[in-house]
Amino acid sequence: MSGVFSEPNNPRAKHLQGSAYLSNRGTDIKFRHGVTEEFMVAYEADNYDEDKNPNGIINFGISENKLCFDLLSKRLTQSDMHHIEPPLLQYPDWRGHMFLREEMARFLTYYCKAPTPLKPENVTLFNGCSSVFSALATVLCDPGEALMIPTPFYGGISNSVYLYGNVQLVFAHLDSKITEANTRPFQLTVEKLKMALQGARSEGVHVKGLILINPQNPLGDIYSQEELLEYLEFAKRHELHVILDELYMLSVFDESATFHSVLSMDRLPDPQRTHVMWGTSKDFGVSGIRFGALYTENRDVSSAVAKLCYLHGLSGIIQYQMAQLLRDHDWINQVYLPTNHSRLKAAHTYITDELKTLGIPFLNRNSGLYIWMDLRRYLRTGTFEEELLLCRRFLDNKVLLSCGKGFQCFEPGWFRLVFTDKIHRLQLGMQRIRQVLQQQAQELHQKLSVPRQLLEQEGQADSTDEAVFVPRQQGPTSGTKTRDLIGLPHQ
Amino acid sequence: MSGVFSEPNNPRAKHLQGSAYLSNRGTDIKFRHGVTEEFMVAYEADNYDEDKNPNGIINFGISENKLCFDLLSKRLTQSDMHHIEPPLLQYPDWRGHMFLREEMARFLTYYCKAPTPLKPENVTLFNGCSSVFSALATVLCDPGEALMIPTPFYGGISNSVYLYGNVQLVFAHLDSKITEANTRPFQLTVEKLKMALQGARSEGVHVKGLILINPQNPLGDIYSQEELLEYLEFAKRHELHVILDELYMLSVFDESATFHSVLSMDRLPDPQRTHVMWGTSKDFGVSGIRFGALYTENRDVSSAVAKLCYLHGLSGIIQYQMAQLLRDHDWINQVYLPTNHSRLKAAHTYITDELKTLGIPFLNRNSGLYIWMDLRRYLRTGTFEEELLLCRRFLDNKVLLSCGKGFQCFEPGWFRLVFTDKIHRLQLGMQRIRQVLQQQAQELHQKLSVPRQLLEQEGQADSTDEAVFVPRQQGPTSGTKTRDLIGLPHQ
Repeated sequence: MSGVFSEPNNPRAKHLQGSAYLSNRGTDIKFRHGVTEEFMVAYEADNYDEDKNPNGIINFGISENKLCFDLLSKRLTQSDMHHIEPPLLQYPDWRGHMFLREEMARFLTYYCKAPTPLKPENVTLFNGCSSVFSALATVLCDPGEALMIPTPFYGGISNSVYLYGNVQLVFAHLDSKITEANTRPFQLTVEKLKMALQGARSEGVHVKGLILINPQNPLGDIYSQEELLEYLEFAKRHELHVILDELYMLSVFDESATFHSVLSMDRLPDPQRTHVMWGTSKDFGVSGIRFGALYTENRDVSSAVAKLCYLHGLSGIIQYQMAQLLRDHDWINQVYLPTNHSRLKAAHTYITDELKTLGIPFLNRNSGLYIWMDLRRYLRTGTFEEELLLCRRFLDNKVLLSCGKGFQCFEPGWFRLVFTDKIHRLQLGMQRIRQVLQQQAQELHQKLSVPRQLLEQEGQADSTDEAVFVPRQQGPTSGTKTRDLIGLPHQ
Repeated sequence: MSGVFSEPNNPRAKHLQGSAYLSNRGTDIKFRHGVTEEFMVAYEADNYDEDKNPNGIINFGISENKLCFDLLSKRLTQSDMHHIEPPLLQYPDWRGHMFLREEMARFLTYYCKAPTPLKPENVTLFNGCSSVFSALATVLCDPGEALMIPTPFYGGISNSVYLYGNVQLVFAHLDSKITEANTRPFQLTVEKLKMALQGARSEGVHVKGLILINPQNPLGDIYSQEELLEYLEFAKRHELHVILDELYMLSVFDESATFHSVLSMDRLPDPQRTHVMWGTSKDFGVSGIRFGALYTENRDVSSAVAKLCYLHGLSGIIQYQMAQLLRDHDWINQVYLPTNHSRLKAAHTYITDELKTLGIPFLNRNSGLYIWMDLRRYLRTGTFEEELLLCRRFLDNKVLLSCGKGFQCFEPGWFRLVFTDKIHRLQLGMQRIRQVLQQQAQELHQKLSVPRQLLEQEGQADSTDEAVFVPRQQGPTSGTKTRDLIGLPHQ
């Protein structure tokens, strides 16, 4: 089920690579590589720097918001951040200092639009949301049991639930095809969840919960309240926990889009099995701070994960700073969010304009730090091997992109492009992408003698007013949501 | 093997207490209580504050050095600590930023007196040493396998290796008895390690490594170079990893005592199976900072634990501050260490004088933040139930102490007293201890009609020049190390 990783359960692989010093699982852990790990290593060794390494790799792969370091650096070095008192240097309550849990509850109440005040005692703090996944998976599932997740999804979750917890993921595969039931590409429906659950059960896999990412990573989809309710009702019918990753909730940068936190609902179908996580990594662009929070009403769950918290603890100094940051609604509302959103929108516009110019179909969403784009027509064959080759070609041309396999995407040829960086980097990165794609198209045309018309039929996805794709030489299909469309005037 | 915790492997207990929401291991984790957990909860609800809660509980239980908050607060708020640059807010190398790993290697080279410079690439950083234990146990042992540790030992290690890793501890029990082979109480010998290993093997338990705490917690023992070498040679013979917890290496506060880090050795018997950990919690009295380091030459081990590191990551801001702290050898050598050591010594002297006055035998060491003391004569019967009753009685009289059971001590009646607090707290705490013991002694004498002479025969430990105990009405036995002796002039 976790096929994105290199043979973690292959005894022969183990034997060949095994270490006299490690346990079997230690060997598994050591050799558990994500598909893009080699690319990350290459990037680390040669990353772009305007002055020192202008020929280095431009990073469109890692989901970090680099647009607001100036604001954050300024805020985090203000004098109110430099306070130290003895309790901050002593062992804390491992669930987090109460002052921060209170602040977190207030913050979530306000920004998630909770109908009644959320409670500090339902908040548990961690050094990042990967740790929340690890702890939750461990206390909800026994080894070998599973959590279900729609694909494509942020692949790091696979490691977070597996490395310590030995929990598997069961995939509900979404695809880009538009049908009667699917009015938009990669649409999540209860039917697909049901199919995946039945499939897992027929293979004897015990599924204990469902993971939903909202806003979705890498799609950028935001679930409507109705959809959300349907998924939660489905989970309730099957006694599944629902883990809601709302890590990008404040990274919705267009007013036309509205995010609904599960915490905003008047009534949750199964509150005791609904667990929400949020952190500062994405929405405040400070992934290096390591701060994540779990909100759950379930006392058994919160007290079980609390036992694991001392292995995921964050510094008292950071707890104090995060409380200062989260309580500063004036700065967040008047300075940070407007600036961040306008910068996100500008960067998104720049990249989407470029993609349109290049004739690359993509999901045109208004949330997240990334764009999900369709490069299927640049693959010689519709295989993941070809996808990986293209990904490597990008890297060889000094631009890091994440390929769909890393997100367990069902269809080869989709890529995630993270656009939250300075304009000159975006420009340089797009220039390199353009070169690779031109080269790739030429090779496809010349070396493989691909008929010209094949190159002009750009992909397999259906055209739709919400979606990504319109055939070359044809204008946008008629529809109401024209902002979601990509016309392809020229390449 | 982990009997200090409440029935973690008892299916009936599971069933009775089980939760519909948790996995079996989630239930185990939730209900895994240390013996002193109830005391900790009571303490949290009613801790002493000079102004706000003068009748609150004095904490002699938690091993924290509260003597130097003034120095640390001052140092950590100096202007060189307030630096923020983008890389600190971004995802780091999960093993830790290279600037800090370099600083850590330099620090260990200097303070451990390494014969050649230690290497940054052998350093891996974590949010505390509990996380190091968790990660190491997981990659060295498969579930159900074991690490061996001499008792008494810091009991938190049991949870750190078990909760995620499902690794058991095998105990090599030490006792206070002086014999031909044991020249001092609780002496660790290779023979005892061998016995414990054989015992475990005969029960089919696979022991993968040995944990050594040096300076020892709770004993305060410092292993000589010869002893250390013997233990390492033993481990090599049996292909055991050795995990060295050197968390208290700079908390040796008397010049007459010398600590030898395993990193100071010219030659390690089995360098590929020797792993050292250190952190700032104890030696810098900042347990709330969450900073620990692993030093190992073994590439397999370091790359396997590195995979788990993102679940134990520490903030970039903290990494920067720790680098500033560790590189400041002038401040450490000229300000911090002299002050800390003189304060440790003064507090230790105050408490040991009090204990002598009370006629309480104890191990008279020159390291650590605690004293290991013998209250066996205050138990009605030599059982752990009685030990727990006495511990509860201390708490009822508003002083928190850790009882031997929490350290898996083999003999009931030993307690650890943490002395690293302000003098007025030490005075108040000792006053309360005196009251409890007087009461306890009276009850033992009156209610149980314990013969007077029994009360006057103070315990069962042998008298020795290194040890703790001399019978009442008798001066110290003759011997060279008189500073280690406790005379009992009067009660």
